[in-house]
Amino acid sequence: MKLLVGQSGGPTAVINASLFGVLDEALASSQVSGVVGSLHGIEGVLRRELIDLGQEAPETLALLPHTPSAALGSCRYKLRDDDLEAVLAVFRQYDIRCFIYIGGNDSADTAHRVGEAAHEAGYELRVMGVPKTIDNDLPLTDHCPGYGSAARFVALATMAAGRDTEAMRRTDPVKIVEVMGRHAGWLAAASMLGKRSAEDAPHLVYVPERPLAAEAILDEVARAHQALGYAVLALCENQPDPSGKVLGAEGTPVFVDAFGHAYHESPGAYLARRIQDELGLRARLDKPGSIQRMMTATVSATDRAEAELVGRQAVRCALAGQTDQMVILVRQPGEPYACTLDTALLQDIANQQKRLPASYLEPQASLPSQAFRDYALPLIGEPLPTLARLRAIPV
Amino acid sequence: MKLLVGQSGGPTAVINASLFGVLDEALASSQVSGVVGSLHGIEGVLRRELIDLGQEAPETLALLPHTPSAALGSCRYKLRDDDLEAVLAVFRQYDIRCFIYIGGNDSADTAHRVGEAAHEAGYELRVMGVPKTIDNDLPLTDHCPGYGSAARFVALATMAAGRDTEAMRRTDPVKIVEVMGRHAGWLAAASMLGKRSAEDAPHLVYVPERPLAAEAILDEVARAHQALGYAVLALCENQPDPSGKVLGAEGTPVFVDAFGHAYHESPGAYLARRIQDELGLRARLDKPGSIQRMMTATVSATDRAEAELVGRQAVRCALAGQTDQMVILVRQPGEPYACTLDTALLQDIANQQKRLPASYLEPQASLPSQAFRDYALPLIGEPLPTLARLRAIPV
Repeated sequence: MKLLVGQSGGPTAVINASLFGVLDEALASSQVSGVVGSLHGIEGVLRRELIDLGQEAPETLALLPHTPSAALGSCRYKLRDDDLEAVLAVFRQYDIRCFIYIGGNDSADTAHRVGEAAHEAGYELRVMGVPKTIDNDLPLTDHCPGYGSAARFVALATMAAGRDTEAMRRTDPVKIVEVMGRHAGWLAAASMLGKRSAEDAPHLVYVPERPLAAEAILDEVARAHQALGYAVLALCENQPDPSGKVLGAEGTPVFVDAFGHAYHESPGAYLARRIQDELGLRARLDKPGSIQRMMTATVSATDRAEAELVGRQAVRCALAGQTDQMVILVRQPGEPYACTLDTALLQDIANQQKRLPASYLEPQASLPSQAFRDYALPLIGEPLPTLARLRAIPV
Repeated sequence: MKLLVGQSGGPTAVINASLFGVLDEALASSQVSGVVGSLHGIEGVLRRELIDLGQEAPETLALLPHTPSAALGSCRYKLRDDDLEAVLAVFRQYDIRCFIYIGGNDSADTAHRVGEAAHEAGYELRVMGVPKTIDNDLPLTDHCPGYGSAARFVALATMAAGRDTEAMRRTDPVKIVEVMGRHAGWLAAASMLGKRSAEDAPHLVYVPERPLAAEAILDEVARAHQALGYAVLALCENQPDPSGKVLGAEGTPVFVDAFGHAYHESPGAYLARRIQDELGLRARLDKPGSIQRMMTATVSATDRAEAELVGRQAVRCALAGQTDQMVILVRQPGEPYACTLDTALLQDIANQQKRLPASYLEPQASLPSQAFRDYALPLIGEPLPTLARLRAIPV
């Protein structure tokens, strides 16, 4: 049978490891007669931008697991109902009988609807989803490939920003690290994975699961600064206030474009400004943006290995006759860390969102809990570095 | 003799390697009777916040070269003339006869003036500077410890941002990476060290040495986007326009604080907005901020080794009777890369700034030249990763 693979949504540092897993498994199988790549996800099917992955050089394939981002190109395309017929027409034309889609919540929806349309049309097609998202917000799977590496970046970046602020506290006592995560706090929470003492950053972590008014955040920053002489906070780029509005999205926009769309400061920029203005403390913003999901130097080896594994497993499941499923990771109880593979229905993953449970947050402080640390630490790979702090015995 | 050491200015990922070099050399010398650390640079002397570094545990010292930021704390304090007497009073009180100051241009000025004041007062004091700055803008030395590691971060971050943009070009075709560097383009230029083909980021690099009007930048972005379908630009956080004003510093401020100080968008945010508004291309900004100078995962081993070496050398020079000098690195001609150590007068380094020479920039394009690449590549340590790009043969 002929297999088609695509990548979709925000890319990650290890989504190409999943692609490698799919390719290596499929190209080695006698049941597979060809592997077609769709450029820029489902858009490549609709536009017939399809490539023959069997013609790629072995050296290129060998580099894939170490190459960040989506080698096939990605998309953010919401499939319309009238697209489904066009997708099936292309599948028919090329005799595609297996569709592997690597992506997050929206991609699961796309894959599920394509599978459903094929079933209704009586076209035999096996559809498998491969989980991917730095946001870690897919239900049913213990975690999502891509998260571990982005979490490692955020943990190391927060350690870095923390030490920077500690040294520069006399002039720049407050630092804000603004990270991704869509509407879930998994990535912002990862900022605390390198924290080993009260002095270590972060001192405050804000996640969408626990909205707080800017005034309350300012109070917490003032208290943290008073305790240590400096304060580092991490927060999600979509951090809402209790009314549900993103922090800073009210008030005068920074600019209004030609179509009348208003653009506001990011929550980090907004808070930095108010901290400076109202607390009189110079606040600086580190906003790594796409670097956090792409940086090769901070890939988690665990994450990369799992990303490849879920790709392989999707092909194995399809060849065994499964369809309309996503491969998921199931955490085994106890130590050392281990996950097994299973599958879940695509429709149970599509358009759902798993957010941080209450037990992963400290009840009385704006910080993730030990339970979160226990959950996330195995995902980010090798232990984070131990840093020196002087005893500083006065002369 | 008793030695006092301090760290000053913006910290780096390897400034503690220099501190370790100073300590390891001084504590091992029979000529040194004690090593005093000044907290937050020269401010620690003025405030008598002095610590006994001989009492630190060997395990702590061993971790120092791998600990980013300034373990003693740093400062941005411009020494006033009437501070000099107070500094000398403290030196007299503790019988400090050797002053080692790890820092950049301003720190060289501080060290030089303290040495001069001691000389005028007939107080025997040996003063040595240890170079440090991610901006790489000190004259006379081939390069500055701290630059190689920050340059490695910027190179890897731009590779990451580039691959991200390439995959997401259908929705987010333009990315801006805004980096540090004060008023010199050394760090922005480092963004091109991972570029191996026309497709690779960056496609445009803007440095303060070559100011360009926003309109001209927009034209270049439009052309780069037309050629590839996406465009990544790197620029300095202080990028000026031809009038000398930082890009975006004119026009309506984002906010005005209680003291009437106006705050403007950063050049990256300003350009992103105009690209979006005038070219109709969604432009995203990655601004890693302090992360770029602190990240342990991107330290250059060459940089760390040299940072330790210049620290050791400063102690050796002082013990040999030298004073009012900064240790410098002298590049040896030919391959493989090698530097020897020498010294230069502090007053020839103080308050001077070395900017990118014209030969390090392409004459006809907004990109650094091959000559810059040859200069900078040995400084960032082990080779940057090779990434896969598919041949993408149509089906």
